[in-house]
Amino acid sequence: MKDLTITLHPHGGKHLYEQIYLHIKNEIRQGKLLQGERLPSTRYLAEFLQVSRSTVELAYDQLLSEGYIEAMPYRGYFVCPVEELYDLGEEERPGGEKNAEEGETGAWASMEERGDKAGRRSSAAFAYDFSPNTIDMTAFPYATWKKITKNILVDVNSEIFTSGSPKGDYILRETIARYLHTSRGVNCSPKQIIIGAGNDYLLMLLEKILGRHVKIAMENPTYRRAYRIFDSFAYRISPIAMDSSGMSSQGLRASEADVAYVMPSHQYPTGIVMPIGRRIELLKWAGEKEGRYLIEDDYDSEFRFRGKPVPSLQASDRLGKVIYIGTFSKSIAPAIRIGYMVLPLSLLRIYEEKCSFYSTTVSRIDQRILNEFIANGHFERHLNRMRKIYREKQDNLLDGWKGMERNFTVSGEDAGLHILLQDKRGRSEKELTDAAAKVGVRVYGLSEFCVGEIAPQWKADTVILGYASLKNEQIKEGMERLRSVWA
Amino acid sequence: MKDLTITLHPHGGKHLYEQIYLHIKNEIRQGKLLQGERLPSTRYLAEFLQVSRSTVELAYDQLLSEGYIEAMPYRGYFVCPVEELYDLGEEERPGGEKNAEEGETGAWASMEERGDKAGRRSSAAFAYDFSPNTIDMTAFPYATWKKITKNILVDVNSEIFTSGSPKGDYILRETIARYLHTSRGVNCSPKQIIIGAGNDYLLMLLEKILGRHVKIAMENPTYRRAYRIFDSFAYRISPIAMDSSGMSSQGLRASEADVAYVMPSHQYPTGIVMPIGRRIELLKWAGEKEGRYLIEDDYDSEFRFRGKPVPSLQASDRLGKVIYIGTFSKSIAPAIRIGYMVLPLSLLRIYEEKCSFYSTTVSRIDQRILNEFIANGHFERHLNRMRKIYREKQDNLLDGWKGMERNFTVSGEDAGLHILLQDKRGRSEKELTDAAAKVGVRVYGLSEFCVGEIAPQWKADTVILGYASLKNEQIKEGMERLRSVWA
Repeated sequence: MKDLTITLHPHGGKHLYEQIYLHIKNEIRQGKLLQGERLPSTRYLAEFLQVSRSTVELAYDQLLSEGYIEAMPYRGYFVCPVEELYDLGEEERPGGEKNAEEGETGAWASMEERGDKAGRRSSAAFAYDFSPNTIDMTAFPYATWKKITKNILVDVNSEIFTSGSPKGDYILRETIARYLHTSRGVNCSPKQIIIGAGNDYLLMLLEKILGRHVKIAMENPTYRRAYRIFDSFAYRISPIAMDSSGMSSQGLRASEADVAYVMPSHQYPTGIVMPIGRRIELLKWAGEKEGRYLIEDDYDSEFRFRGKPVPSLQASDRLGKVIYIGTFSKSIAPAIRIGYMVLPLSLLRIYEEKCSFYSTTVSRIDQRILNEFIANGHFERHLNRMRKIYREKQDNLLDGWKGMERNFTVSGEDAGLHILLQDKRGRSEKELTDAAAKVGVRVYGLSEFCVGEIAPQWKADTVILGYASLKNEQIKEGMERLRSVWA
Repeated sequence: MKDLTITLHPHGGKHLYEQIYLHIKNEIRQGKLLQGERLPSTRYLAEFLQVSRSTVELAYDQLLSEGYIEAMPYRGYFVCPVEELYDLGEEERPGGEKNAEEGETGAWASMEERGDKAGRRSSAAFAYDFSPNTIDMTAFPYATWKKITKNILVDVNSEIFTSGSPKGDYILRETIARYLHTSRGVNCSPKQIIIGAGNDYLLMLLEKILGRHVKIAMENPTYRRAYRIFDSFAYRISPIAMDSSGMSSQGLRASEADVAYVMPSHQYPTGIVMPIGRRIELLKWAGEKEGRYLIEDDYDSEFRFRGKPVPSLQASDRLGKVIYIGTFSKSIAPAIRIGYMVLPLSLLRIYEEKCSFYSTTVSRIDQRILNEFIANGHFERHLNRMRKIYREKQDNLLDGWKGMERNFTVSGEDAGLHILLQDKRGRSEKELTDAAAKVGVRVYGLSEFCVGEIAPQWKADTVILGYASLKNEQIKEGMERLRSVWA
């Protein structure tokens, strides 16, 4: 407890209680009274300052109600944690958090996984937000999910409350191996699969496997969240300009990178599918030297609308050079926090040696629910339903584009949940996004996804429009508005 | 597809089908046939080798049944992932995994969180395993947990299927802040709390905050899992001998460490409670230099049976030097994978700057369930019930010890789920554990928890007995057996 030296001005402009209140408040704000510090009792301070006890009580009440101090029964008054007073920038508030995430439609899921800069701004000011970072949760089979959960908990025994294997439960890894083999041509045994709480965590784990001194090549433009993560590892990052087939292999060679992070089946955000020739070039590059690897982020492979299915890069990997990463955030829900990483054997051995003691990050109950969801065919059905829903939304988007066909080239429409529009008349993305904002529509400039210098073929004349979380009517109306300012 | 050149010996000692089978099997084992490679069709190979098709089919069947190849409808036969053939040591098998974890009692939860060396050996050979790494899940309020889950899913809206705040949902952080304040005297605002999928993950995140070049001091003996984790970060680790008050502060000063990892309220495994004097010494040490921190692992603070409640070290921290880490693995269940870390302000700022983009690792649904469980008083009730159950178990253990009182000093009995027995006659822990093993009882030598050299006061004459997962009868019988060989 600390004495308070307060100079009171009995005839000043302010009430005595207010002077006491302001004095203490300032002491706290200036860090002179520290978090957890006990204030003098009201009786003591009243005597000390020669004022009535109720005057001090009034001052303390004010401080209490403003959250500067707290009362602890039988112990007295204490200074609240000071951090409450720091402005830490983006920190959420209990109510605000929810609202910020839900946006104005309320019923949609923000896709934090692929958050990028694009997801960070408030979208409250926009009537239509064509964010590429959302998914549509309205058609999610909640009833099925609940039923599975219920059944699993009915069956519950203490076994599934134990922590389980560090890699995740074998049964789920088996199910995922089967699913990846069938749907993506991935060749792996359940042993090579590590279940983890999302992409970010899996990359953290991968850092432990690959080590610290990695030079990593990334496509440019790219998935900026992965960029930030690699940057936080202090990896040296070489952005490699994309050409129309994906990461340029000359660029990759020139970069002297050890590892390349690629999205061959549907590059984010360009939507480019890496053709087999380029894939072989990259695999060849990786095969030439020990320690070279390709990280394949197969983030939205589930949603392909046109053309032949594109197998994963891992499917062509004969030398064990591909680290395959996927997640259920986009195909099921961001909230479930389950992703997986398929390690080639050489890295699996390092994992077993160096990292296999890290406990799993996914609840065993959740693993069991997900396993049932996939193994009993619900996942497949859900994906089929979502493909139809997203396809219809994309059709509406493309219909809107047709009204502006003279002025815009479209790309990236074969798969995924967003398209790109390139202005034929050379208007800059800034002109386009600004014009859109004026009519309450939010679109995203391609340069937001770039790292460092933009490659010449990706001029700043391209905007990205995501459609997953908008309703069909909203897509139509949004495109109508865009046409009114863009066409 | 590859031609197979097989030299058949029609009159050799082996059937033709067997020769084919062995040849292909060896090709695969030697890596000449690679994973995913297609084998010739049975018809083609039969023609090529001039044998009957059924001979080839027989060979293929054998390879299929042994898992060397797999059949894909309409596509043919393919070489299975080769890693199946590697012996990767401890990798689990679908059935074995479960059994290994459950031990023979089946109904208990292995406490992987505090796994150490102690948890790694198979316990199948022992009738009574006094492991310090288990908890008792038999009294877990499954019905309540199910009900909460059900209610949350009834109420479900798509909002909780979104990924939520990187730090965890505000509402849960608020609940945890309140709980920690009441039960552990921790002073923090919800803003300082980061929810994460277990201790290991939180330490990985902390590495990102503290940086790479950390010299960390650890108590010796200590929690070896944390040691392994810091070691995997390539942190320089100074094991500091414990004296009867905990980590020696001279030792700490001499170590030139930046960060000290301590368990002040109930050290693992010694059970020592750090007295206030030593706490102040450590806090003073931390306060003397920027960048110095104390990591307080408050891993089993919930279970205190005797004496006054011991507040957390964080409660005495006036300078923001304590990083407080806790988990629900021991107090609820290892499977739920939810822990929390309370950051001091200086580190919170670094987190906000450098790490706040890492997505949360805990499912929002699980966060909501846990929040209800705590906020509605179920957690409190569960803890009270468990304290009673564990207390009774410990009483039985101590009763057993009383029969050997002449020969053993007991310590660590005021809290936690294990005790230490020190041999007064100087028998070594090896003699003690070996003698115990002969009568089917497993106890743990203290040196298993040591790093490097053991401190003189922790001579290798002490064994550790955990009791959480044993039934009262088992404890009595186990102690009876120990007395028969130890007394």
